[in-house]
Amino acid sequence: MTDFFKGIPQIRYEGPNSTNEFAFRHYNPTEVVMGKTMAEHLRFAIAWWHSFAWPGGDPFGGQTFDRPWFGDTLDLAKLKADVAFEMFDILGAPFFCFHDADIRPEGRDFAENTRNLEVIVDYIGEKMADSNTKLLWGTANLFSHRRFMSGAATNPDPEVFAWSAATVKTCMDATHKLGGANYVLWGGREGYETLLNTDLTREAEQAGRFLQMVVDYKHKIGFKGTILIEPKPQEPSKHQYDYDVATVYGFLKRFGLENEVKVNIEQGHAILAGHSFEHELALAASLGILGSIDMNRNDYQSGWDTDQFPDSVPEMARAYYEVLKAGGFTTGGTNFDAKIRRQSIDPEDLILGHVGAMDVCARALKAAAALLEDGGLEANRKARYAGWDTAEAKAMLGSDLASIEALVRAKGINPQPKSGRQERLENLWNRFV
Amino acid sequence: MTDFFKGIPQIRYEGPNSTNEFAFRHYNPTEVVMGKTMAEHLRFAIAWWHSFAWPGGDPFGGQTFDRPWFGDTLDLAKLKADVAFEMFDILGAPFFCFHDADIRPEGRDFAENTRNLEVIVDYIGEKMADSNTKLLWGTANLFSHRRFMSGAATNPDPEVFAWSAATVKTCMDATHKLGGANYVLWGGREGYETLLNTDLTREAEQAGRFLQMVVDYKHKIGFKGTILIEPKPQEPSKHQYDYDVATVYGFLKRFGLENEVKVNIEQGHAILAGHSFEHELALAASLGILGSIDMNRNDYQSGWDTDQFPDSVPEMARAYYEVLKAGGFTTGGTNFDAKIRRQSIDPEDLILGHVGAMDVCARALKAAAALLEDGGLEANRKARYAGWDTAEAKAMLGSDLASIEALVRAKGINPQPKSGRQERLENLWNRFV
Amino acid sequence: MTDFFKGIPQIRYEGPNSTNEFAFRHYNPTEVVMGKTMAEHLRFAIAWWHSFAWPGGDPFGGQTFDRPWFGDTLDLAKLKADVAFEMFDILGAPFFCFHDADIRPEGRDFAENTRNLEVIVDYIGEKMADSNTKLLWGTANLFSHRRFMSGAATNPDPEVFAWSAATVKTCMDATHKLGGANYVLWGGREGYETLLNTDLTREAEQAGRFLQMVVDYKHKIGFKGTILIEPKPQEPSKHQYDYDVATVYGFLKRFGLENEVKVNIEQGHAILAGHSFEHELALAASLGILGSIDMNRNDYQSGWDTDQFPDSVPEMARAYYEVLKAGGFTTGGTNFDAKIRRQSIDPEDLILGHVGAMDVCARALKAAAALLEDGGLEANRKARYAGWDTAEAKAMLGSDLASIEALVRAKGINPQPKSGRQERLENLWNRFV
Amino acid sequence: MTDFFKGIPQIRYEGPNSTNEFAFRHYNPTEVVMGKTMAEHLRFAIAWWHSFAWPGGDPFGGQTFDRPWFGDTLDLAKLKADVAFEMFDILGAPFFCFHDADIRPEGRDFAENTRNLEVIVDYIGEKMADSNTKLLWGTANLFSHRRFMSGAATNPDPEVFAWSAATVKTCMDATHKLGGANYVLWGGREGYETLLNTDLTREAEQAGRFLQMVVDYKHKIGFKGTILIEPKPQEPSKHQYDYDVATVYGFLKRFGLENEVKVNIEQGHAILAGHSFEHELALAASLGILGSIDMNRNDYQSGWDTDQFPDSVPEMARAYYEVLKAGGFTTGGTNFDAKIRRQSIDPEDLILGHVGAMDVCARALKAAAALLEDGGLEANRKARYAGWDTAEAKAMLGSDLASIEALVRAKGINPQPKSGRQERLENLWNRFV
Repeated sequence: MTDFFKGIPQIRYEGPNSTNEFAFRHYNPTEVVMGKTMAEHLRFAIAWWHSFAWPGGDPFGGQTFDRPWFGDTLDLAKLKADVAFEMFDILGAPFFCFHDADIRPEGRDFAENTRNLEVIVDYIGEKMADSNTKLLWGTANLFSHRRFMSGAATNPDPEVFAWSAATVKTCMDATHKLGGANYVLWGGREGYETLLNTDLTREAEQAGRFLQMVVDYKHKIGFKGTILIEPKPQEPSKHQYDYDVATVYGFLKRFGLENEVKVNIEQGHAILAGHSFEHELALAASLGILGSIDMNRNDYQSGWDTDQFPDSVPEMARAYYEVLKAGGFTTGGTNFDAKIRRQSIDPEDLILGHVGAMDVCARALKAAAALLEDGGLEANRKARYAGWDTAEAKAMLGSDLASIEALVRAKGINPQPKSGRQERLENLWNRFV
Repeated sequence: MTDFFKGIPQIRYEGPNSTNEFAFRHYNPTEVVMGKTMAEHLRFAIAWWHSFAWPGGDPFGGQTFDRPWFGDTLDLAKLKADVAFEMFDILGAPFFCFHDADIRPEGRDFAENTRNLEVIVDYIGEKMADSNTKLLWGTANLFSHRRFMSGAATNPDPEVFAWSAATVKTCMDATHKLGGANYVLWGGREGYETLLNTDLTREAEQAGRFLQMVVDYKHKIGFKGTILIEPKPQEPSKHQYDYDVATVYGFLKRFGLENEVKVNIEQGHAILAGHSFEHELALAASLGILGSIDMNRNDYQSGWDTDQFPDSVPEMARAYYEVLKAGGFTTGGTNFDAKIRRQSIDPEDLILGHVGAMDVCARALKAAAALLEDGGLEANRKARYAGWDTAEAKAMLGSDLASIEALVRAKGINPQPKSGRQERLENLWNRFV
Repeated sequence: MTDFFKGIPQIRYEGPNSTNEFAFRHYNPTEVVMGKTMAEHLRFAIAWWHSFAWPGGDPFGGQTFDRPWFGDTLDLAKLKADVAFEMFDILGAPFFCFHDADIRPEGRDFAENTRNLEVIVDYIGEKMADSNTKLLWGTANLFSHRRFMSGAATNPDPEVFAWSAATVKTCMDATHKLGGANYVLWGGREGYETLLNTDLTREAEQAGRFLQMVVDYKHKIGFKGTILIEPKPQEPSKHQYDYDVATVYGFLKRFGLENEVKVNIEQGHAILAGHSFEHELALAASLGILGSIDMNRNDYQSGWDTDQFPDSVPEMARAYYEVLKAGGFTTGGTNFDAKIRRQSIDPEDLILGHVGAMDVCARALKAAAALLEDGGLEANRKARYAGWDTAEAKAMLGSDLASIEALVRAKGINPQPKSGRQERLENLWNRFV
Repeated sequence: MTDFFKGIPQIRYEGPNSTNEFAFRHYNPTEVVMGKTMAEHLRFAIAWWHSFAWPGGDPFGGQTFDRPWFGDTLDLAKLKADVAFEMFDILGAPFFCFHDADIRPEGRDFAENTRNLEVIVDYIGEKMADSNTKLLWGTANLFSHRRFMSGAATNPDPEVFAWSAATVKTCMDATHKLGGANYVLWGGREGYETLLNTDLTREAEQAGRFLQMVVDYKHKIGFKGTILIEPKPQEPSKHQYDYDVATVYGFLKRFGLENEVKVNIEQGHAILAGHSFEHELALAASLGILGSIDMNRNDYQSGWDTDQFPDSVPEMARAYYEVLKAGGFTTGGTNFDAKIRRQSIDPEDLILGHVGAMDVCARALKAAAALLEDGGLEANRKARYAGWDTAEAKAMLGSDLASIEALVRAKGINPQPKSGRQERLENLWNRFV
């Protein structure tokens, strides 16, 4: 045992009236909601990067966190893993997620990177054997190192494509070895700063080909997890190619991959794209590509990725309502892609950020489930569209403009508006959150 | 002749040194640029709605314009058409565009609407016979009347779908009769205010079916123009379905219509979607769906559709550079979907708004053409991606992750970053604008 | 009795478990919270404009509401007042607010406007005599009519200044006569569209002089209410002069009016200015100019004034926490400057919009009060700044740069960062909302 | 001579037709515009931080620039100064600007920081003796080090205030010694992340007191330069206290410092605050606090500080028009607070970024001067407000509401709107840019 979290107890459910900061007040892993336990519904994961690798810097200031594992050696990487598993244990976290660069020291070349990765993957594998925490997903960091500054798969230099492809292979191997439930691709540098130096067409073709290779390799090695793309509209680049769910869907259709790849939707990325989180979830569900979620919150007024822990039950309830309506997660889960503020420098801040967020999600899940079980909202929705369920309406939908014109004339159709009842439905919603 | 524009002369090209407000300083219709006249390149169109139908209101105030044709009778609609053609003549405008509701008085029912439309279409047809101005595109206004408040094709009420389909038929007929070069669909109310009362899946299916009917009817009547969708991300609804070019592309692919329908891209809508105008143009060109443009400018800091006349040559040059690179317009053109400010209440403001915008576009076209002919930018772009033209790189792109990993190991690939040269290219750009 | 709200019962408190749509579940007017009843704390007001005058139009569509009182006659204005007081009664609303243009028909000139206003003010006065509903504030609409298109007090035309000043006099008289608790100025057209035609310096001086006249007139007629300015950053104009609380404070200081005038802060306007609502409230309280609030919500992603009814208890709790910390309202209150969506066309939507919002505010008030009474947040805040309460720190603050440098050297001061504990405080907050 | 810029020639003016990348095409330092040379008007300064200290990192990736002077020793700091002066010479830059942390290595404590600063200030002083480049302004970096994470002057910990005050003293000493024309304060960490842990009132008082000390110390040491505050609305903190010009003005009035302190306005910060750059300039001029400008450009669609080099002549012309109208700079100047993109890793990118920007500013200055000399815009502005120059209007402005009401009635005042002529003025503008 390291002493990083010394004095911090294991977090247990104590119920809504508890005033103990180090307790869950709403997240009760074994409590059954709509036929599954809360743990099974929510499938919480801890993100290695924000919790263990981020130094607390921002564009105007450097490191604020003092962590004994900061540095670039295998021993420190192992210490980091030790602390990570201690935190998983304190929180009772069922899953974690990682990029290669989070868990291994940076090497001088591809071979050393891969060796470092293998050593650490083995080490993590051993820790997992003694732990209840599993791998939700792995991914490759193809954006931090300067070699990726102009893109990974979409780089103008084929050598960077090659490096990236080789690296993804090693990360898929690692994810497979650790029993990961999904493999994620976030196009950190897949985008552009200026059209003046960019060839959109070539870059899209490179990206399509890259994704096909990933899908092929998944089948080749027998990885049963889901391949996920994580949309984001901007930042780091002026324009990111995987802008939002609709954009990714178009990309998948273009390359014939819509049945092979799903999306990992991040709250903050949805916001930055001008959408609500629930819009992105509902759209992905409607298109059959809802995979997993990166849970955080973005400040609506800060135009960058703030990656804060969620704190709003009403907003999260909207999200889980869509997840539940879509049937819940299969391989996906709720990954906290969230970081404590850079002023939150104490070890207990790291724990408390997660405790609060898990409680927010749990309250949201319960509210969403209660509303879904109540049925009031869905009954209203169904009633609103009921006209379309008639044989006449279906026939019309299957006909053509000229026939419909004749129908309008023959029947003297002159439609009258009907209330959308938004405030009433918001009131109904507020009975449950 | 009405006397609305009394005292305003026909606008002629007088060259850059002219200080005459009522003259073009840059738009010289017959001047040849890259093998075509400026008139052939730009294909300017005047929008009936902003210039003749908009009363000058905004959410905080009513009508500011006093126009003798305001009112809802056939006689006033004809007076409006008279003034419109006088303005087309003053400006030497080669094209115009209209919605049904701009040109005809509103009737009590579908039959009366259609009769009114037919009368006015005949009247406009007669005026066109004596004019050089043609129809760039027609469209149906399926958003202003309260019957459309919850959508047209995507309405929960099948009667509204029927009304909308019948109306589009009449507008396609009108456009065809007037020799229109395109037919446009802008989904004014195709979107939602709140997910609480919305069924995304049904609404998308209704929209897909509606578009298929439009395409079928085009073929049925032998209309040779292009069907265009105009993307917009928000406003009037919280979320518009045709968010941006990428979203529309995904929608077309989903319903198998990507070879039948193109996009009409508006500068302001691009901005509201978080994109640059040139991004949307370049993307559409790359996807093979670039059709036409709605030219205006959106205030970057006002989060609604400001529809101002363009005033920035450097920005418009970026746009025309993409249009020229894509081979220029075929059926499309430059429609001024722009309105004078509501404080610009004099008739001459209406003329001067267009004069200035046409000059801005002309300067931008010439700058873009000069840069394209110079070749410096394209040479730089080509050089940046040159590595991909080797047989080795092509082979790699056709291979798989495992083979690439072997290659990286075998060759010790360790890519070094190369300058993106953005500032240098911006300087090059500024030599031409 | 009109029959507009036929069948809608008076809204009464039934407690949180009620499933009756036409009941309060949280707003219990006589319930005591921190020493005052909820009615005394919240001081809810209904806005005449949104509830009775707005036709449901938006920039892309016209009227959706059918109201029997729409039209421009004194009889219809009286019918509107009848319905308004029926709604006040149904909701048990303690206050209302109005612009002159909401309550009286528009006349042909100033004299007719004033006569119309006087007739209706007398009529409302009679209704108030039989009602428990009082006037929170009155104001003049100096933005809707085309004469104000270039400003009211800041107009380039002194005649518009004169008209505006005369109109404000009549509205102050009306407010005084009806026993209003405040008089509000919102600078609807006080701003500019383009700097090209604007003289900032002159316009600011006109505005300063105008405000001084208002203050003088208040004292002259013995009006005891508070004069309030309502900040807004943009819309309708590109740049509104009363941008936010800090801007208004600077303006008041410049003209020596900071002890005479306070602010009426609107949630949506705060959001549009890039601030949180609670920021504006806390800042105004800190500067001694917190007056009243316009309660609504703005969609964070729609860049215009959406004026929706509030639906988020956590957000409203932040607001009422600042109000309570500042000592609560004196003459101010909670005015619902909120409109039902244009699709919400049924009379009951109007009632339910308010019922839901009143409940949201009540829950928020109770949560804020509980947290304030708990004291945990304030204790943490006090502890964070405790270092400044030492005599040494105070002495340093009173000294000078050179002395402080000597001190830093002498004592070897080398400050260590302390956790800001944000997540922990967010968790604490979430125990109460 | 270092060899960092090896092969890059001194940049000279070659005129608009030059195709030499390493030449000015518009900036001709000795050319006279409105009675002063371009060098005297523009007073260009190079920013030490972006050009020599920034490693090219962003929130998603680390260092991209390889610079031989990166590291934390006095020798490397001197090498950095050598390269800086070589660049000043290549560009013919008349000024530079610095933070203490840009020029000296970080020490272990205050004493070592100060010693390091003194050594480097002496070294720079020697270099200046052999150079034509002067110091536009100095400042203290009170935001990068973790000790400032919760504020400098506004920190909850008085020790941080003390450290900050002592540091500012040393930086004012350094600026004074090097003959700086101004001293700047940018409140990098003066703001808050969450109101939950913040005491706005205390923090404002600390900031006011701090600024008073700075002003007092300026007088004490006989520094004749101007004290400047640089407004910014957000980033790094959620809410920065010096939000915009209007906010800073209110702050100065509150603490009685409006005659002692002016503003340094940054284009990008203006944009982030929701204003145009020219608005901030015009407002500051109107309030008598226009000091200097930080020239850059912010991407309008990226919600963070992008600090790009300006590339738009029309936009910059708006800015210089306001500067010229206000009488031009006195102690202020045009500081390029701009960084080459992180992909622009070659030494020549650093030169070319500045060359292009200097040309953009020069073109903008000439256009603005030509328009001002033409007089058309100002004549139009004057005419628009001419009504206010009558004795009658002035008398009215000096009277009171009741008298004005009597006047409106007596004269039957019924003002008619007049065109604001925006498009016409935009066309006039475009004749010059």
